[in-house]
Order: sequence, then structure tokens, then C-alpha cells
Amino acid sequence: MSFNKVTAEDISVFIKIAGEDRVFWGEAISEDYHRDEMTEYGLYAPECVIQAQSTEEISEILKYCNERLIPVTPRGSGTGLCGGCVAIHGGIVLSTERMKRLIEVDPVNMTATVEPGLLLMEFSKLLEGTGLFYPPDPGEKSATIGGNVMTNAGGMRAVRFGVTRDYVLGMKFVLASGEILSLGGKTVKTSSGYNLIQLICGSEGTLGFLSEITVKLIAEPKYNVSLLAPFESLSRCVEAVSPVLNGATPTAVEFMEKEVIEDSERYLGKQFPDKSANAYLLVRLDAADMTSLSPAVEQLTDILLSCGAEDVLLADTDERKTSIWDARGAFLEAIKGGTPSMDECDVVVPRNKIAAFIEESQRLSAKYSIRVRSFGHAGDGNLHIYACQDDLNDEIWKKNVQALMDGLYEKARELGGQISGEHGVGHAKKQFLKESMGDAPIAIMRGIKLAFDPNGILNPGKIV
Amino acid sequence: MSFNKVTAEDISVFIKIAGEDRVFWGEAISEDYHRDEMTEYGLYAPECVIQAQSTEEISEILKYCNERLIPVTPRGSGTGLCGGCVAIHGGIVLSTERMKRLIEVDPVNMTATVEPGLLLMEFSKLLEGTGLFYPPDPGEKSATIGGNVMTNAGGMRAVRFGVTRDYVLGMKFVLASGEILSLGGKTVKTSSGYNLIQLICGSEGTLGFLSEITVKLIAEPKYNVSLLAPFESLSRCVEAVSPVLNGATPTAVEFMEKEVIEDSERYLGKQFPDKSANAYLLVRLDAADMTSLSPAVEQLTDILLSCGAEDVLLADTDERKTSIWDARGAFLEAIKGGTPSMDECDVVVPRNKIAAFIEESQRLSAKYSIRVRSFGHAGDGNLHIYACQDDLNDEIWKKNVQALMDGLYEKARELGGQISGEHGVGHAKKQFLKESMGDAPIAIMRGIKLAFDPNGILNPGKIV
Repeated sequence: MSFNKVTAEDISVFIKIAGEDRVFWGEAISEDYHRDEMTEYGLYAPECVIQAQSTEEISEILKYCNERLIPVTPRGSGTGLCGGCVAIHGGIVLSTERMKRLIEVDPVNMTATVEPGLLLMEFSKLLEGTGLFYPPDPGEKSATIGGNVMTNAGGMRAVRFGVTRDYVLGMKFVLASGEILSLGGKTVKTSSGYNLIQLICGSEGTLGFLSEITVKLIAEPKYNVSLLAPFESLSRCVEAVSPVLNGATPTAVEFMEKEVIEDSERYLGKQFPDKSANAYLLVRLDAADMTSLSPAVEQLTDILLSCGAEDVLLADTDERKTSIWDARGAFLEAIKGGTPSMDECDVVVPRNKIAAFIEESQRLSAKYSIRVRSFGHAGDGNLHIYACQDDLNDEIWKKNVQALMDGLYEKARELGGQISGEHGVGHAKKQFLKESMGDAPIAIMRGIKLAFDPNGILNPGKIV
Repeated sequence: MSFNKVTAEDISVFIKIAGEDRVFWGEAISEDYHRDEMTEYGLYAPECVIQAQSTEEISEILKYCNERLIPVTPRGSGTGLCGGCVAIHGGIVLSTERMKRLIEVDPVNMTATVEPGLLLMEFSKLLEGTGLFYPPDPGEKSATIGGNVMTNAGGMRAVRFGVTRDYVLGMKFVLASGEILSLGGKTVKTSSGYNLIQLICGSEGTLGFLSEITVKLIAEPKYNVSLLAPFESLSRCVEAVSPVLNGATPTAVEFMEKEVIEDSERYLGKQFPDKSANAYLLVRLDAADMTSLSPAVEQLTDILLSCGAEDVLLADTDERKTSIWDARGAFLEAIKGGTPSMDECDVVVPRNKIAAFIEESQRLSAKYSIRVRSFGHAGDGNLHIYACQDDLNDEIWKKNVQALMDGLYEKARELGGQISGEHGVGHAKKQFLKESMGDAPIAIMRGIKLAFDPNGILNPGKIV
């Protein structure tokens, strides 16, 4: 790939398109744009940052950059974990941070149409009182919905409600050529040619620029309870996942280990309601009415106890729920806060392989003398494994963490897993994707990339 | 596209690969292979039919045909409605009819792995007693699961449980080059590069040959009831759909008109339990236990009555359920039986546009003097509209039905709909797809096709 540098003339064109207020270059570019949440994967200064405000503007900018061969890296709020929104080949960062409108809530068709820069937490607030509900619920609430679509974000509620791709019905999508595609709409299913929307979900900004999204909403489940089940060991804990899914319809099934809970207690300065056990399964049930919730709780309690849970704590008050879910929500920050640097992996394995994978991570942790913390979406087989540098010197850390990650991805492959359950590939995991998929699928992906973006200007160096 | 004819030498190679029993040519080819369910879209004789038996065999055949530029049309049980499995450019038809094995049911991960030629009705029988359940439920139970994946079939239960693509976790997929891809597996979510599985679902055999499928299963909902609500008019009936979806979690929401019910009564020789009204909404509820079903029935009844239903008939006995759902299941055959020839359209529109679309179909029916029958998945906005030739002469029929279809697709576009909700495009609806999508998305689809199948040997003349 051979790209052109951004010149003063280019800048003047961008200013003409977007106005002086929304074009930044040189010293005026905040360092926030050099990175996402994982500074460990490198800092990259873009040559220019443009805060887009409309589909038409995005179209003009892409058309110009495509002709001039200037790389364009789409960016939401920069909360990714794989360097997906970082301009590793320079060029411009095209940010959606000013495109935050909730364009429409359609209560009859149960859809919402939004701009891509709307934050998840803003979106859920805007839906309050409508009786409608957008289920995808990644831990990072200050992520944008556009970023969520581009990484196919999952989150806590995926067990019952599915992931982001399951909610995307329509979109405006700007190609590198500047052409604006209107795909889908408010229809809830389709068999009308190749499903471009499903291909675009999870494509991390490498195929085009998402400028408007129509998502499916569901009727808000009004009542919920959470059940916390302590187990003697992690393996007994994760063995309970399948019986739980077979006998109940949980919204979320999370596993947590004692050590991570303790990290979280320290980080939040709050006590977790139980500390008797080594591992916990946290299960949430949602329902439209209390009548159907009570028998479901009883049934689930029986299942958990028959799977060896030492107890089942019911969290049915706001206070109880908050104390448990706040702890769960703080895991990533708590682990981050306890180490100068870290690396993470987000593999997904068949549910019955969770214990085997965790065991291997513990073996590798000992082998390479790297402290490892893990938690994750047990109901999806999606594990977040964090390797902590602690006081290891940089040289040993770099060497050993690479070997640890290689070992983890190899194990995931062996267990029939995949390299990312919900965080994506970005540039940080490109090599692992290649190793995990083999040459032929990667060649197909390259061909797809070419069909959308022949000059390769869109988010170069990511995925393939 | 310039393809080669199948020669005697080619046949001898195919026999060497697949054995004499499973290779047919010339007179030995049954006329069944000339068509799908819609003979109206033309009869096309393939030059050779091969009944494949393994992934490796498919790989060898494709590799050979790719080098020799011989078209290959994949085929399941031929129950499609758009000519998708018909060899319009000659060459070979590669059939999955002998690949019917249920390879594995994994109760822990709740998955099944099957060969593509397994029929839906066989699959559901094989799952009986496992407590597990495969939700997609198209009307045509003698369709193969491979064909269902390739058209992304929907069916009755899509309202609650989603369509075929929502259940496909993994596949073996043979490229035109003969390369065998193993995609996905038993993992329930992924953000690991472009989602090829989701792209392949609904690609109608144009990108490669599906030779093995791993699908997600769910815990079998053990109890169900159906509610039949008569309405004074179709528009009042379909207006009830959104309130129903907002206040309940139905598995199926079907609308039916008096005339179609009468066709079905004649066809089955059985009485429908109610004939007081012009239109009916049929709603099904499923649950794991009776306790949660009763309040849901009460709530749904209230909603239906408040939306103007004249009554709500509860079908909670097997006999009642059978009499209603058998009638619904026979609609297509009943309509087919009443006319020498017909044409169909399978548009999907936003749910609140169903009434507007039906109204337009009635207007066009009068304008072109063509009798029209309609029914469909109201909960999905997916309408099946059948135009019946009756005693119109061929010339007028052809001219008028074309104008009628043009009008219907134009209206679907205007209402924000798409040309196919679940039947696919095949060759019969290619032109309508092009008109509905515009040039840019079609160009992208062509690029995707090229990435998978550079010589264009796979199911040529379909979709793009």
C-alpha cells in the first residue's frame, strides 16, 4: 500500500467541506486520537482529524481521500481494545463524536434510527419511558453505537438477547468512492441477495463508513432478579452453565473468580456480598411480569444447587443488584488499575471448553511467570483473559506475554474456538486471526475488502 | 460467461469420483431436476446430475469443473420458489439428496451438526426426546436444511426465534477451487474478521457448496397455545400486530383472509373452526411451563380485544390446534390447486405498512383483472402474495402479471420494504433485486461473488 501524506492543500479542502471548527491538524490534534483503550498496542498520530457531522460530508471527504489515496480511519469514542480506530498508516481520523442524534424512535415498528456517534449510555437514557429497549449491553457504556456495530459488540445480555448484529436492520453506509448506500430499513428479515448489512457488522471500518443505523428494539422487560451462586471451584462453576441454559432462559450468565472480585472491591472501595467461595456464577433473569419470574427463580435455584452450588443468593433489591453488578462492571478497570501494563485476549470457545481453557491459562501463567486474571460471559463461552505486567521488566514481559498469548490462541484453536468473541481484531490481533483462520478464508476476506474499497484507503492495516 | 459443455470424458471423470450409481446424464436424468416448485419460471435440463456423498467428493468435482469451466448448480430437495436450484446455464446439478446424516447432537453445547440434505421434517423427528429444538420452521417441511441455509429461510416461528441465519454457527463450505473452508464451529458468537458465515447464509449456492452445517439448538418449549382472533377487516387485523408484539412474546403471528381459509377448507376437506369474520390474526405462545403460559394468554386476549378483535378463540387442545394450523399450512397448496398457473411475491415491509401493501395489491388485482390471494407472517411484515391465472389466456396473463408484479415491487420499495423476506432471489427475481437495490450494492455483490468464485461456475445466473 502506498498512500499520500496530507498536504496543506488537502487541509484547505477539508476545511471547505467541514468548516474550520471541525478540522484539526498538527499540534491541534489531541493525544486522545493517537490511541484507543490499549496504549500497549502503540501510539499513532494521525495527520488530520475531522469531526464529521453528516452523511453527505462523509461522502465528500471519502471521495476526495479516495482520489488522493489518503488513508481514512473511522473512529467513535475510542473505547476499543484492539487498536481498531487508530491511524497506523497516518492520514485522517474521521470521527463520529459529533454525530449523536437519536433521529427517530418508531414505537409501532419497534425501531430506532440513530447517528453512529451516539453513546450507549445516552441511547439507553433516551429510550427511558418509551417502554422500548435496546438489548446489547457491552461493559463499556461510553462506547458509541457505531463502534459497537463495527466490532459486533456483545456484552452481558447476549446469552438471551443476542449480539449487536442481531439488532441492525438498516444503515447508511458510505463507500470509499463516496457513494452512499442505503441498506435495509425497518424490515425485520430479508433474503434479498447477499446480506451486506451482516457482512458490514463487525468489519471494523475497513469496508466503508457507517453514517446512520436503524436498530430493532424490543419491549422492555420490566422485572429482573439476579442469582449469585458460589462454587467450590471454577470448573464446577462453569460446568453448571449448560444445565442452566437447558433449564432456564437467563439474560446473562457470568463467571467470576475470587481474585477478580477482590481486585474489584479494592478498586470500588465496596464490599461484595459474599466471599465464601473460589468462583461464582452470576445469573440474571428478566421478565415482563413478576408472576412468571418467581417460578423461574425457583427452577433456576434448584438447577444451581443440583450442580453443586454451595448456596444461591437472590439479589432482588436494587441495593443488592447494584453491589453485585457494580463489582462485575468494574472488573476491567480494577485489573487495569493493579498493573502498569497488560495485554488481553477475548477468545470464544464452545461452552463446555471454558474450564479447559481457563486451566490452560493458569498453566501458561505459571510457565511464563505472568499473573493472569480472567472473567467473562460464561453463557457465551466468551472469556476475557488479562495478562498483567506487574513488576516484570519490559524485555521479559514482552517476550513472555507474546509466548503466553501464542499459547492461549493455540489452545483456543485446539478447542474449536475463535480469536475474538466481541472485541474484534483491529491491528493488534491480525496475526492471530491469520493463524487461526488459515490462508483461504483470509484470501476471501481480502477479495471482499477489494470489492468495497479498491484503493484500500479505509482503515488500512486492520483485520486483513 | 462462456462455459464448456459436459463431454463424455467429463462424465467418465465424474463416475471415477462419485461412482456409476450417483452420476446421471442424458435420458437418465429425471425431469424433477429440471425445475423447482415453480415450473412457471421455466424448465431447464442439466447435462449431468451428480448425487454427492461427501465433502471430499464435492471438493474434487468443483475443482474439476472450475478448471474445465463447467457450471455447477447446487440442489437440495428442489422445493424453492425462485428457480434457485435450476441449471439455467446447463452443466451439472450437484445434489445433496444423499447427504442426510445427523452427524452429532451435542446436548452440552446445545448444537447439532448435520449434512445439508437432511430434510427439516427428518431433523425435527431425530431431535424428538432430546429436549432440544431447532426453531426455524418454514412451511415446506420437505425442504433440506442446506437449502434453508442457502435461502436464509424464515417460517412461522421467526417472530420470536429468528430466521435460519440466527442458528448457523459453523459450516464446511467448498469453494469453486475445491478448497474446503471450515468456518465457525460450536461457538455462539464471534467478532473474528468478516463474518463469512453470515454472508454465505442466503447466498443461494452462488459462493460455494455447503457440505456440513452446525446449528444452535434451544431448550424445547414444552407448552403452547394458539389464539385465533377474528376481525371485521384486514386493516384492523394487521393494526393489532404491533400492540401484540409490544405486550407479549408470541412465537408466531400470522394473518389470514376469509377467502384463503375457504380455499384451504376445500383443499383439505376440513372445516375451519370459525368463519364469522373477514380476517384473522393467529398468534401462538410457547413456554417451558404452564404456569407462565396462563397469564400470558390472559394478557394477549386483553390486547387482542382492545385492538378490535370480535372474539378470541383459544386453541389449547391438540385437535383445535391441528384444525387451525393445518389450514394455515395448506394455504400455498390450496391456492396452487385452484389455478392452472400462478406467480408469487414474498416481499417484506415494515410491520405498520402491511395494510397499505395489501390494499395496493387489491387495487392492482382489480386494475389487471388478476385474482390475488395473500397470507403471511404478519409479525415479520413478510407477505406472500399469489397471482392466479385462472382462465386468463396466456398472452394477457403474461403481460398483466408482469405489470402486477412490477407494481407490487414498486410499492414495496416505496414503503421501505425489500423484495424477498424468505424465499430468495434465484433467477426469477434477479431483475427486481437490481431495481430495488440500485447499481452500487449490486456492484459490491458482484465483487463478492468474484472473491469466492472467480470463474463464475457456481450457480450462474442467480442473484447477480
